[in-house]
Amino acid sequence: MTLDPVFRPRAVAIIGASRTPGKVGYVLTENLITSRYDGRIFPVNPNAEKILGLRCYPSVLDVPGDVDLAVISIPSKYVLQVAEECGEKGVKALIVISAGFKETGHEGAVLERKLVEVVKKYGMRMQGPNCLGLINTATSLNISFAAAMPRKGGIGFISQSGALGTAVLDWVLKEDIGFHSFISLGNKADLDEVDFIEAMGEDETIGVILLYLESIERGRKFLDVSAKVVEKKPVIILKGGTSTAGARAAGSHTGALVGSFLTYKTAFDKAGVILADSIEELFNYAVAFTEQPLPKGEGIAIVTNAGGPGILATDLSEKLGLRIAGLSSDVRNRLRENLPAAAATGNPVDVLGDARADRYKFALEEVIRDERVNATVILLTPQAMTESLATAEGIVEIQRRFSSKPIVCIFMGGNLVTEAKEHLRRNDIPCFDFPSEGIKTLSAMYNYARFLKEPDYPPARFRDVDPKKVEEVLEVARKDGRVVLLSNEAAQVVEAYGIRIPESRIAQSADEAAIYAEGLGYPAVLRIVSPDILHKTDVGGVILNLNSADQVRSAFNGIMTSVSRFMPRARIYGVMVYHMIPKGREMIIGMSQDVQFGPLVMFGLGGIYVNFLKDVSFRLAPLSEPEVCEMMEETKAYTLLKGIRGEPPSDIEALKRTILRVGQLVWDFPQIVEMDINPVIVYGEGEGCVALDVKITLTKD
Amino acid sequence: MTLDPVFRPRAVAIIGASRTPGKVGYVLTENLITSRYDGRIFPVNPNAEKILGLRCYPSVLDVPGDVDLAVISIPSKYVLQVAEECGEKGVKALIVISAGFKETGHEGAVLERKLVEVVKKYGMRMQGPNCLGLINTATSLNISFAAAMPRKGGIGFISQSGALGTAVLDWVLKEDIGFHSFISLGNKADLDEVDFIEAMGEDETIGVILLYLESIERGRKFLDVSAKVVEKKPVIILKGGTSTAGARAAGSHTGALVGSFLTYKTAFDKAGVILADSIEELFNYAVAFTEQPLPKGEGIAIVTNAGGPGILATDLSEKLGLRIAGLSSDVRNRLRENLPAAAATGNPVDVLGDARADRYKFALEEVIRDERVNATVILLTPQAMTESLATAEGIVEIQRRFSSKPIVCIFMGGNLVTEAKEHLRRNDIPCFDFPSEGIKTLSAMYNYARFLKEPDYPPARFRDVDPKKVEEVLEVARKDGRVVLLSNEAAQVVEAYGIRIPESRIAQSADEAAIYAEGLGYPAVLRIVSPDILHKTDVGGVILNLNSADQVRSAFNGIMTSVSRFMPRARIYGVMVYHMIPKGREMIIGMSQDVQFGPLVMFGLGGIYVNFLKDVSFRLAPLSEPEVCEMMEETKAYTLLKGIRGEPPSDIEALKRTILRVGQLVWDFPQIVEMDINPVIVYGEGEGCVALDVKITLTKD
Repeated sequence: MTLDPVFRPRAVAIIGASRTPGKVGYVLTENLITSRYDGRIFPVNPNAEKILGLRCYPSVLDVPGDVDLAVISIPSKYVLQVAEECGEKGVKALIVISAGFKETGHEGAVLERKLVEVVKKYGMRMQGPNCLGLINTATSLNISFAAAMPRKGGIGFISQSGALGTAVLDWVLKEDIGFHSFISLGNKADLDEVDFIEAMGEDETIGVILLYLESIERGRKFLDVSAKVVEKKPVIILKGGTSTAGARAAGSHTGALVGSFLTYKTAFDKAGVILADSIEELFNYAVAFTEQPLPKGEGIAIVTNAGGPGILATDLSEKLGLRIAGLSSDVRNRLRENLPAAAATGNPVDVLGDARADRYKFALEEVIRDERVNATVILLTPQAMTESLATAEGIVEIQRRFSSKPIVCIFMGGNLVTEAKEHLRRNDIPCFDFPSEGIKTLSAMYNYARFLKEPDYPPARFRDVDPKKVEEVLEVARKDGRVVLLSNEAAQVVEAYGIRIPESRIAQSADEAAIYAEGLGYPAVLRIVSPDILHKTDVGGVILNLNSADQVRSAFNGIMTSVSRFMPRARIYGVMVYHMIPKGREMIIGMSQDVQFGPLVMFGLGGIYVNFLKDVSFRLAPLSEPEVCEMMEETKAYTLLKGIRGEPPSDIEALKRTILRVGQLVWDFPQIVEMDINPVIVYGEGEGCVALDVKITLTKD
Repeated sequence: MTLDPVFRPRAVAIIGASRTPGKVGYVLTENLITSRYDGRIFPVNPNAEKILGLRCYPSVLDVPGDVDLAVISIPSKYVLQVAEECGEKGVKALIVISAGFKETGHEGAVLERKLVEVVKKYGMRMQGPNCLGLINTATSLNISFAAAMPRKGGIGFISQSGALGTAVLDWVLKEDIGFHSFISLGNKADLDEVDFIEAMGEDETIGVILLYLESIERGRKFLDVSAKVVEKKPVIILKGGTSTAGARAAGSHTGALVGSFLTYKTAFDKAGVILADSIEELFNYAVAFTEQPLPKGEGIAIVTNAGGPGILATDLSEKLGLRIAGLSSDVRNRLRENLPAAAATGNPVDVLGDARADRYKFALEEVIRDERVNATVILLTPQAMTESLATAEGIVEIQRRFSSKPIVCIFMGGNLVTEAKEHLRRNDIPCFDFPSEGIKTLSAMYNYARFLKEPDYPPARFRDVDPKKVEEVLEVARKDGRVVLLSNEAAQVVEAYGIRIPESRIAQSADEAAIYAEGLGYPAVLRIVSPDILHKTDVGGVILNLNSADQVRSAFNGIMTSVSRFMPRARIYGVMVYHMIPKGREMIIGMSQDVQFGPLVMFGLGGIYVNFLKDVSFRLAPLSEPEVCEMMEETKAYTLLKGIRGEPPSDIEALKRTILRVGQLVWDFPQIVEMDINPVIVYGEGEGCVALDVKITLTKD
């Protein structure tokens, strides 16, 4: 693996090692020594002979033998030279702890760029700069400020915030959670989250990958790599910085409606990456995912000795897409025969407040055997007769015998349940303090299991498209220096990708307009063509419902008068003449390029409703057929499209194809940065849909 | 206070006291003795002479002197007789621990009713049956299974689930949270949550009232009492059973759109009761509310030694309606002068990873002095230089000097922050493990403070209403045995409350219809009047857009033919003739009676959109003017009403008055169980609105 020098170095140099306790260079050296790392350690410091009993070298070049990894913790102004020396020495990877780079402003950014150049020149890789190092319990490698190592386990944690990492390390020590590795990303000048996700994906001793991220620069690569890794292990992300959405060009409806967090969510969903809402959730998920099998379906059973918490758990389960399974009649009969008469033998199974361990164990074994039950939640409150530790022991025993079905425990209370909780956790059964945490975690497990079961549908590709035509149109606009296409050009672009548009002609005179209108059929519509007029209705540039040649002529002249009054300097390319198309449902299909993740396609209710009802959904291109179906179903407008209250259903099939074609178009032409088809008019089943008004904006270069 | 015999009894009899360790009657007696209750304790058991060193009496009648409170824990079949004896003895209150009542089915319910009769006969009050007792740390009274009492504090906790209560008691012991009292409601046969909220409201040693409730029977009383109590102290509720919404008659749009949980939320909002989402939240809120002052505004400051968690806290603050305050230039200058150059001196204030206690203290003192800062969040992650305990000590000191502004701490990590956390909690500064908990809690505090600042607006009462007319119409329907009003009757009802309806006449013949149409003006609309036809359009019972007497005549005949073909047995009362009213925006105003809380008024987007867009909002009648304004503003349709994209604004004032009139009507006539005005057509400013189609359903009796 390419990151072996980082994860499994055979020899580590600590450049900037120090003899002074409390200093970073001392703490790093001490932690590496006490972590029982079994490779060689070479402190480097020109002013010391020995550090913590190890021989010290004036420069990395003086170190005897190979050095896989150099940890650099010296003032930033010396880092460049030291990196050069590392390169000459043949060091394979650097971890630059030193701050004073991009995070400090322009000068630091220049220094960081130069550092990356040196790293690349020698074919090295670099973690940081401005990072807090790493911990790898598998190789007993502790290059961090954390004095104590967590116990070995399957969690790999990648953090863009070093401080969050140290807080979490301290917390997992207290909670006795097993950890595989912790990576502090720092400024991500070379190695970033994508590299580490890839590396952790290949490492079979890692069961789950956690991330805290504030930014993702290589969005598409992130998705591609993650999508592969999630097939083997869950990738769970906590995203910081959701409210501080960067300013986004909002020249289109799609641009205005998409938020930064929504883009991340859409992207993570596409790749099957699990989104956590808080640090607690991140770790609750991590523990459960590493310890328990995934549920094979949404049916769960709840066994409880208390009605109230059972109700809370049921409420939340249903809200989060789990289902309280109906138990088979066999199981119900046996529960009825063996539990006290007052017990509830449906689901949730209430074993009553006086249940001892044996009753819990019996009920658990019964429900876990039931084919309809894919996961079990055990709720316990400490009451007079409750045997919490013995109950925990019973659960562990049953779990061993039915190890293919997950069990999640919720033991409420304090000292009366402490020992029981510890027993469960030691035996890899997640145990939570409150119903909400346990149910949310189980729901995340089920969602991941469901994702894994779905096939990977390839994006749809239509063959009847004409990319050359699109190129021609875009070329004209580019030569013209225009980034917003004329409405007839935009219509040509979508038409070249097989999307139906109203037939039209551009007229230069009132008479020409009348002739075209006769040919296209009445009622006719006239609309001004000008690169300078965005809101054509507002300047009297659109006239509908014209029913004779005379009306068309006077409308043409009216438009010209009105436009020349409102916008005397606008360039006029003519007036577009259409046949007015019949009414139908007004939808919107749009696209906005995301800097990180590429084209984000939007679908929803169109017309004047789009901005205030915001009934829209998003997917990243390229689009597969099932994705587009989901996308449509997510909108409330879908109910309308299916036909409500006796109205006939709309042509959903045609709409689906149109969205797919838009997805293909924007994927093929990344220079299209924003696009709105608003409205796209959809007619009854079999009657298709028409892109009535198309706006397309291109990149500036 | 009426509940003094429960909260502060001078003498307690334990009926069913036992000598056998482990038995309920033993545990109760032992706990009462060891709780250091300073009143007299009388065990009652005919088969014992002494129990736990106390003299035992064969019957409560044999007890010397007065008994304020009798705790009953004997098989249910003996409870009735014992209750009689208690009545004869002059006992003032009973706590019935015994199960075997309503919760077991019909027989138990009968027994429970008889028990209540006995209780009432003697003017006693009763907690339970089927409850787990109570704890009152103020009077050192422990009548429960919980062996240890929590430390004294200001939290009063009322639980409909006994088991949840015991779990929580065990948990607060471990977390060292102060408690005033715990009440297990049981079956609520006599005393219910309303009685206890009222009593706890009057008790000045209680600072905050917590409830776990599954049902509320006396909904209106609950709201009235709570609304008074929340002026003095917060009332925080966790509602169980939200998914198991009871089957609800859904003959109207309003009925179909309102969910059980939504009703509770609307009701709690009206009374200013705070809704918690989970048990954690319930107690997080409780601790913060008892320990800290309320923030006087939404501006908060965040002081952190770590960027990542600071970002997470900022994200959530903005999402939950708090605002990251802009600091004054004075404060910013002093921060800049005294903090290291790399520190962020905006807000969040990042004191950097190497911040020691003094730097935290300095920054906290600066921001807390700033007038724009109403509350401060201190975030700490344990890093190399961090002095967590000393930082906590500094915070406590500052809090003492600036005690009018709340401070919430978030100390992340494990053992490195344990001592610091304990110090904060001992000094009444709430300290959380993760940003999300702390920010959610602060947001709940701010929302409560904002609620307290709002005046209590009385409901609006129009004087130009004619309740007598409404009574007449309802009387006719009742005599007729109809629960659904005819459309003309429904129109008369709303008209009597000053709501504009289209002018109309009922015609019995084609000629009569034509004469009316001439009088009302064209275009005319005809609509069948029949108590048996609900969906008039479906049977050809409505014809629009008639422009001459001839057209009206043939439409009349057409309707009769069509209706007699589709619904030959329908009773026909004639055909309503209207002037067809001009188009406008279609809204809906509706009402559905909630069994617990009374009339719930709905407003939103009407017409065919109502069911699929569900753009509606709810308030409980009677309605005040600001409530209706809020209600309208909550809908997305409000943007439309204000006028978007150059369209003129609608007559929002007229709409507001119409909603208020509906609120007054349904408040005055509780026999109206459901009502829809769909659509109510609203025109441009100053042009009013018209109730086009009104449906009204009455109670059966």
